[in-house]
Amino acid sequence: MNILTATNFSAAQISQLESLPDVHVIRQNNFQPKMAPTIDVIMAWSPLAAKILAGPNRVKFIQTSSAGIDYLPLAALVQQKVLVAHAGGIHGDAIAQSVLGYILDFARYITHPQNRDPQNFWQGRIHRRVLYSVVKKRVLIYGTGHVGQAISQLLQQVGLSTIGVNHNGHAAPAFVETVALAASNAQPPVADFIVNTLPLTSATQHFFNADFFARQPQPPIFINVGRGPSVDTAALITALENGQLAGAALDVFEQEPLPADSPLWQAPNLIMTPHTTGTVDNVEDVLFAIFYPNLQSFCRTGKLSVNQADLKLGY
Amino acid sequence: MNILTATNFSAAQISQLESLPDVHVIRQNNFQPKMAPTIDVIMAWSPLAAKILAGPNRVKFIQTSSAGIDYLPLAALVQQKVLVAHAGGIHGDAIAQSVLGYILDFARYITHPQNRDPQNFWQGRIHRRVLYSVVKKRVLIYGTGHVGQAISQLLQQVGLSTIGVNHNGHAAPAFVETVALAASNAQPPVADFIVNTLPLTSATQHFFNADFFARQPQPPIFINVGRGPSVDTAALITALENGQLAGAALDVFEQEPLPADSPLWQAPNLIMTPHTTGTVDNVEDVLFAIFYPNLQSFCRTGKLSVNQADLKLGY
Repeated sequence: MNILTATNFSAAQISQLESLPDVHVIRQNNFQPKMAPTIDVIMAWSPLAAKILAGPNRVKFIQTSSAGIDYLPLAALVQQKVLVAHAGGIHGDAIAQSVLGYILDFARYITHPQNRDPQNFWQGRIHRRVLYSVVKKRVLIYGTGHVGQAISQLLQQVGLSTIGVNHNGHAAPAFVETVALAASNAQPPVADFIVNTLPLTSATQHFFNADFFARQPQPPIFINVGRGPSVDTAALITALENGQLAGAALDVFEQEPLPADSPLWQAPNLIMTPHTTGTVDNVEDVLFAIFYPNLQSFCRTGKLSVNQADLKLGY
Repeated sequence: MNILTATNFSAAQISQLESLPDVHVIRQNNFQPKMAPTIDVIMAWSPLAAKILAGPNRVKFIQTSSAGIDYLPLAALVQQKVLVAHAGGIHGDAIAQSVLGYILDFARYITHPQNRDPQNFWQGRIHRRVLYSVVKKRVLIYGTGHVGQAISQLLQQVGLSTIGVNHNGHAAPAFVETVALAASNAQPPVADFIVNTLPLTSATQHFFNADFFARQPQPPIFINVGRGPSVDTAALITALENGQLAGAALDVFEQEPLPADSPLWQAPNLIMTPHTTGTVDNVEDVLFAIFYPNLQSFCRTGKLSVNQADLKLGY
């Protein structure tokens, strides 16, 4: 069984994988085109992986290094009966720290443009009284899966209160309160911050649109650490300009990489990071902890043991 | 007894103060020069307060709105036997949130200059791998008073580990570990972040100097939320430039307001805020909670009940 990996596992990790019966690991930089039809398992999606899948191939298991799987050729994978495991759970704590960082940045006016303007730094526009404590601030978190739970838990540790939003309002770990999507749409809860962690599906495409922003009972700060296309970017810019949003932090974008001429660069009260919030220090180790048991299980039974994605649901 | 207040207490709060026997409150914007010799108590220091103290006066009690009292004319106050109460304790939680915000900003590369550069935002210099988790990062906190304790407690809630530094290494609430100043100088503990909360005294003037930065076993990120003159600004800039410091966040400065032509504006890896970290939402309420019992006690016994400063120690 041939494993193609784009993840830079250590020599020890490769050895451990190859100690499984009949497993042979090919690092992506050792790949040769003639190997394409012989690859059985793909570890981490890449342009090369896409090329292999598009040609004659016998791929039967793909392990992603991301929580989302929306960027995979889902229809082709269903047809070809490829099993897919996502990496949900490994990014949660890292994303939660970034979200708390965004929130404190806004609440404490840490990197307000004013603070980079020598002429107005001291006596200028930032009145000290605008700073506030985040304790008891209300945060509405869309999505109560691994990432939403990690965010909720960290924010609660610092004294904020959170409400989770999911399909039918079912209870979720790390949430004291949850509401159903439909209910939160009908009567949007008052929130100081709104955080999106929803997976990208046909139901969440442009979910955060002009109508959503206009319906907010008070201008919240909107944070997107889910997927870019869940947000109507043009509507977000308008909401920032007309004050329906008090601010926004975006880690993901409708178009990635974000073009240098995107109108987002001119939007007020916006913090942007280049799809980095999920970054963890030791990504190979956490991915190995998911991939190894999955590969082991796949070799023995043809099934996966952890994080299997439902290709029809899209997550 | 005439109270001059620069703090904008509510009408209800003024009434409560004036319900004390013989107390009359004068708001600063109702002050007339002829009242100067009749003021007994000053609530919150101001240029007007300085003027009153410099002339013939009968002031006997000053309540500051700051934790530090270094900016008061201490020698004159000692000579005139003026009692001083500081506002220590009211700013701690707010400062702690700002400090956590600075730390997350650095760890998660939230507002790195790269993230404001359309040309290099995505493919440019910030490799995702430089982001790190703050969990278990070590923070050395100089000063284990109210502010240091509030910072230590919040950082521990998020999973960082803290070490307090004080005069003789005595135990302090919210610290698991403390070391003496002399010991930390002789053998600086390895720290990812160093936070200064020390009061400004002759002993702390330029305490953070070229020698201090050069002695660090690894380049820490230095955060000053104490007093500006505790830091040798020129040495700090050099340490940022030569990599002895991995970064810095300054809320206080040797010269305030910070001049527009300060060389700090050119220093790398530096976040600056205009002496705002201590800002609380409801400053009048928290100040009233200190001033009222003090005034009550002062009226009855001529003594203070809360937060009396030692003018000879300077805090």
